[in-house]
Amino acid sequence: MILLKNGLIVAQDGERRIFRGDVLIDGDRIARIAKNIEERADETIDCTGDIIAPGLINTHGHVSMAIMRSSADDLQLHDFLDRTFAMDAKRTRQDVFWGSMLGILEMIRTGTTSFVDLYYWEDEVAKAVKETGIRGFLAWATLDEEFTTQEGNPLSNAEHFIKSHSDMERIYPMVGIQGVYAASKETWMGAKQVALEHGTMTHFHLSETRKEVYEHQAKTGKRPAEWLDDIGFLGDESLAAHGVWLTVNEIRRLARNGAKISHNPTSNMKLATGGYAPLPEMFREGVSVSLGTDGCATNNNLDLMEEMKFAAIMHKAHRWDATVIPAQKALDMATIDGAKALCMEEIGSIEEGKKADIIILDGNVPEAIPLTDETVVPNLVYSMRGDSVKHSIIDGKIVMRDRKVFFDEETVKRRAQELGERLISRQI
Amino acid sequence: MILLKNGLIVAQDGERRIFRGDVLIDGDRIARIAKNIEERADETIDCTGDIIAPGLINTHGHVSMAIMRSSADDLQLHDFLDRTFAMDAKRTRQDVFWGSMLGILEMIRTGTTSFVDLYYWEDEVAKAVKETGIRGFLAWATLDEEFTTQEGNPLSNAEHFIKSHSDMERIYPMVGIQGVYAASKETWMGAKQVALEHGTMTHFHLSETRKEVYEHQAKTGKRPAEWLDDIGFLGDESLAAHGVWLTVNEIRRLARNGAKISHNPTSNMKLATGGYAPLPEMFREGVSVSLGTDGCATNNNLDLMEEMKFAAIMHKAHRWDATVIPAQKALDMATIDGAKALCMEEIGSIEEGKKADIIILDGNVPEAIPLTDETVVPNLVYSMRGDSVKHSIIDGKIVMRDRKVFFDEETVKRRAQELGERLISRQI
Repeated sequence: MILLKNGLIVAQDGERRIFRGDVLIDGDRIARIAKNIEERADETIDCTGDIIAPGLINTHGHVSMAIMRSSADDLQLHDFLDRTFAMDAKRTRQDVFWGSMLGILEMIRTGTTSFVDLYYWEDEVAKAVKETGIRGFLAWATLDEEFTTQEGNPLSNAEHFIKSHSDMERIYPMVGIQGVYAASKETWMGAKQVALEHGTMTHFHLSETRKEVYEHQAKTGKRPAEWLDDIGFLGDESLAAHGVWLTVNEIRRLARNGAKISHNPTSNMKLATGGYAPLPEMFREGVSVSLGTDGCATNNNLDLMEEMKFAAIMHKAHRWDATVIPAQKALDMATIDGAKALCMEEIGSIEEGKKADIIILDGNVPEAIPLTDETVVPNLVYSMRGDSVKHSIIDGKIVMRDRKVFFDEETVKRRAQELGERLISRQI
Repeated sequence: MILLKNGLIVAQDGERRIFRGDVLIDGDRIARIAKNIEERADETIDCTGDIIAPGLINTHGHVSMAIMRSSADDLQLHDFLDRTFAMDAKRTRQDVFWGSMLGILEMIRTGTTSFVDLYYWEDEVAKAVKETGIRGFLAWATLDEEFTTQEGNPLSNAEHFIKSHSDMERIYPMVGIQGVYAASKETWMGAKQVALEHGTMTHFHLSETRKEVYEHQAKTGKRPAEWLDDIGFLGDESLAAHGVWLTVNEIRRLARNGAKISHNPTSNMKLATGGYAPLPEMFREGVSVSLGTDGCATNNNLDLMEEMKFAAIMHKAHRWDATVIPAQKALDMATIDGAKALCMEEIGSIEEGKKADIIILDGNVPEAIPLTDETVVPNLVYSMRGDSVKHSIIDGKIVMRDRKVFFDEETVKRRAQELGERLISRQI
């Protein structure tokens, strides 16, 4: 048992309660939340002056691309894609594993306890999940064979990955689809069928760029989300990333099917693919929206706390309305709405009986002051950064204590530096 | 003498050189930059694996508002102003002093070594500058007497402040002007005269909101920057903050007079005052543009590294062009262009003979990996955060070593928490 003593708890429960108290963790679950719990625990963490919050949930990314960080910046989209794909094609399994280790290390250090990944060689990412203690929702990317560099048939690869990773702790295999520009109707529906058979979710890129939308429209006469609805793909197991170039009609179709959106503001802004994901309309129509950092090639970090701030202020600026996406909503998107995106009610808030995915943040850094029940949420969203995360507990296990992760951080950084440097130098 | 050994130096000199080497500091100056300096120094800092960069320059803010952090978020502008001014009117000298201490602590910890402040009671801010070792460009705000809560005449107060702070180390008094909405022609020209007499700069808000522009136009028939040019105010001693609602004609007038702009992207986005400061046009016309965080009421932190990222990606998104404000330009705005904004060529880059305002950043944090000569600048701008600043040297003095500042940090935080909590609770 682990006892968290005397923190300012941002519960993210139904009432969004904020209160001072203790949290008792038994196994992988939150056993009790109360003032002055006297129980004897194996480990007690004094949280006086600190903030206890649910672990953050990053619902879209390509974690292993962390070792390609800062290698293709400030380029027009076609130049960016040329360069990134060229590097990607040269990657080895080793690059993917150590890249994932680097990205997960970064995520844990910035408060993320669950992440969604879309890539190939997800078995390598799964190994990194296993070694680091994070919770991973891993979508093996499928696409038409004519577009892939994967060995073998992508759909078979995905199914094999799911079968071989279905009973592993903290690993939730999913079926990925690259996007309408690389997948035929058969691939989309094949992916859905695999997902339904194995009770997993699907995760895919959707309407990130205008080009993608217009080309699909030219080819099929329909916009991507319309088309996905019409072919019978969309369902409540659908988690779409980006969703920038959506019409209100498409948003309604997503809502009707229970499909979810992962919003990636930093990546969209940095790639300059234009437009702003229509979040207020998604909220109005009842689409669940969560937050993703996307990969390091387009962000270039994995700090979901920064992403909360960007999301909130980007939409304020775009709508000329400072009330759009208030701090509480930004925090919701990174926590409880992320849990909804994954159809996983066990995470995303601090409530008795839920999984113990909890972060403790330093309430005594200058940027957290003044700290009161009223300022704690705006502080988390607008002024604090991922670096203020002191401890991280995932699935009831302390994976980081006083900013020291339990696995060998130095080896991760050394290997990632070596491999990343080689990968980038071969490209430049 | 202080010797920085074996760092990756991002010089920000004319050639924007990046190289590995040592930096020798003698007194307040950079004495030598070379590989393997053998000189015996009083203090040697091993920078192996770390990044040596010029200290960042924050060219607009209200530092003492740090204790009002997160007290007025997600509000429409008039509600925000009502609330902030109400709190502001209740502030004591003590609030301003400890608020400044908190804000400066935060700035030092995130790599800022010089900052510009616009407020009243700048003598309290000056005390905080003195105690913390930072470099402060302090503009006492003048405005028409009918609008002020200052005791006495604001212009006399400003002049008194300048006279009494003209020979102090690291303190550069300036004349502030609130903005066209609160200052008549007489006040503007009075401020300029004081500035010219004492050889200081002027610092003021300019065209932050449409309301300000349209009301001024209704009153005078001219847009603010036009009007300031016509009354003879603008000069190369003019440092204007915001500059969002400017026409190309106004930008040309600013350029012709050598006036400078401090760009405050986060504040502008968060307040949702609409529009985007026309930076590409400012660059084209030759206006010097630097970066400011603005105050904590509108940001809500003072991390200039975050500001670099926001500046770069905001304009990419707005222009649908990823090549706008590349990483190098964002870093320039926060360093060498900040020095230009202050007409102070002695800071902003690492070159022999310049002031020793230097930060050393941890090159071994996950978000800095891979670290190469090619990735270091995009890493600084896009992936790293202020928290990676390990050491800070200002005016040749180590003000922070291994993230410990030389002054009493705990007292600053305790006092700021007490006073901030009181200030906010009286308001809510």
